[in-house]
Amino acid sequence: MEVLITGGAGFLGAKLARQLLEKGTLADASGKQQPITRLTLLDMVAAQGFADPRVNVVTGDVSDATTLARVVTPSVQAIFHLAAVVSGEAEADFDLGMRINLDSTRLLLEQARKNGNRPRVVFTSTVAVFGGDMPPKVLDSTPATPQGSYGSQKAACELLVSDFTRKGFIDGRSLRLPTISVRPGKANKAASSFASGIIREPLNGVVSECPVPPDTKVWVLSPRCTIKNLIHAHELDSAGFARKGAVNLPGLTITVGEMVAAMGRVAGADTMNLVQWKEDEAVMKLVRTWPGDFVTERANAMGFVHDVSFDDVVTAYIEEELGGKAA
Amino acid sequence: MEVLITGGAGFLGAKLARQLLEKGTLADASGKQQPITRLTLLDMVAAQGFADPRVNVVTGDVSDATTLARVVTPSVQAIFHLAAVVSGEAEADFDLGMRINLDSTRLLLEQARKNGNRPRVVFTSTVAVFGGDMPPKVLDSTPATPQGSYGSQKAACELLVSDFTRKGFIDGRSLRLPTISVRPGKANKAASSFASGIIREPLNGVVSECPVPPDTKVWVLSPRCTIKNLIHAHELDSAGFARKGAVNLPGLTITVGEMVAAMGRVAGADTMNLVQWKEDEAVMKLVRTWPGDFVTERANAMGFVHDVSFDDVVTAYIEEELGGKAA
Repeated sequence: MEVLITGGAGFLGAKLARQLLEKGTLADASGKQQPITRLTLLDMVAAQGFADPRVNVVTGDVSDATTLARVVTPSVQAIFHLAAVVSGEAEADFDLGMRINLDSTRLLLEQARKNGNRPRVVFTSTVAVFGGDMPPKVLDSTPATPQGSYGSQKAACELLVSDFTRKGFIDGRSLRLPTISVRPGKANKAASSFASGIIREPLNGVVSECPVPPDTKVWVLSPRCTIKNLIHAHELDSAGFARKGAVNLPGLTITVGEMVAAMGRVAGADTMNLVQWKEDEAVMKLVRTWPGDFVTERANAMGFVHDVSFDDVVTAYIEEELGGKAA
Repeated sequence: MEVLITGGAGFLGAKLARQLLEKGTLADASGKQQPITRLTLLDMVAAQGFADPRVNVVTGDVSDATTLARVVTPSVQAIFHLAAVVSGEAEADFDLGMRINLDSTRLLLEQARKNGNRPRVVFTSTVAVFGGDMPPKVLDSTPATPQGSYGSQKAACELLVSDFTRKGFIDGRSLRLPTISVRPGKANKAASSFASGIIREPLNGVVSECPVPPDTKVWVLSPRCTIKNLIHAHELDSAGFARKGAVNLPGLTITVGEMVAAMGRVAGADTMNLVQWKEDEAVMKLVRTWPGDFVTERANAMGFVHDVSFDDVVTAYIEEELGGKAA
């Protein structure tokens, strides 16, 4: 069983890779677990820290057809397509977003189709496909009406993944990811970057500016649950995905103020003083269009998971990323 | 005011062209009526029968960037993008559908963006963006879940049109067209072709095979109302289109059996004997996924029109296409 992760050097990609190496097997087309013999990590920069002989690090542009043909080969049966330009960047650089988010996905699907082996493709879409006039709670039946280029490009890809699947070219599974928090590392250009920064920076003893007011509702999922869900999406049989398109993943509805309060409970009230409220109109403009509350009946029935409380999310971050101790 | 119609040699394109030439003006960016000085008709074959000096017939491939650059110039302020591969053909030839339906639209939008003059773009989408598990009546809030390549490609284009509009690159207006009946001319490769054939052929004294059972519900709009709606979509200010995406056009819900009965009332019961019921699984497979009933509150509020009865549609067809007399 050969596996490909695009965006394999990124935070989620690398975390997924480590989890897959530990798990050691994935379901093949018949649903039978097969040992992972090769795990290719494609990214613009080389994925670091993988000494495992199964890992094949490839650097290259995911929007380049030749590069994709090198990694999407007929022996690759499982593809996790995570490579993307984030929301803020796709909004600021329209062409870059179209190329990386839309064209790359198209090329990847076409290459998989050409191979003729109908690989399972887990595609990471986003709750940013929702926007505009929305119900108080987004349901599985709520239409995608993206109000940003990132969400538009991801929604278009969902349609391609569904149609390539219906045609039998691939076995696709699209997941709409909530805002992931707490992301380790540096702030990125996602408009939702603050949802990690307001926890990560204070836990490292650093000030974090929050560009949205405390009562802003967000729909969040921890990295730990996200990785579980990506693997679960691969392992499920195709019935739950057929004909219905992308799945809204479960998550937690929480205000930004409550997130900071959870940090205070877990890591001490002092951490809360490191959050500075400083509204940023450009960020608010995008974030305001995203829904903050969902009813995810379909995902729940399919066995996708979410965090029990944000306190647990903060605790897990401290354990996994800070060696058990906040600064 | 320079105007472009892609698919300008097709039945709808040519009909729209004649109507625009008669009308003589269209709204400019500020909403003011301006005389149409040039009307370019782009199609694979030369549009026939236009002696008007304003008409500029261009033959070429709508998926060719050079051809598009020739016709989508900075002086073109109004674009009606009708060129498409129909449903049955897009299903049979996946690559052709992707190229003509998706790539051409992308190229056209990119060219318009490059020109920097923010033209009004009327994009013809389709009710085939709906499919699968649907409510008994499709509402404006029903999500697009296409179950065919044609509908998938059109739905992806709707997302592009919306995002290009939101970004200020164009002023886009997407309409989801019902099944158009009665189309003159020959049967085409649309899975819905029968919805015209069962009326057109008998009125010409020719037998027509109907591939779906008489109780099949369809959502139809006459060519006359379709053209009115295309022009209306151009002339409206952008407020009704902003943020909400494509508009479901109004239509008539009718069973195929009722359509044939209407023909019998208008043109004599003998015509009904020329319809032969002969189910075709490939056609039924696509048609079954399309919705047959809608509530189009948004389109109604925006002033889009539909036919009062199918009897009127048959009468209009006989007047417009048969010189007032069925065979």
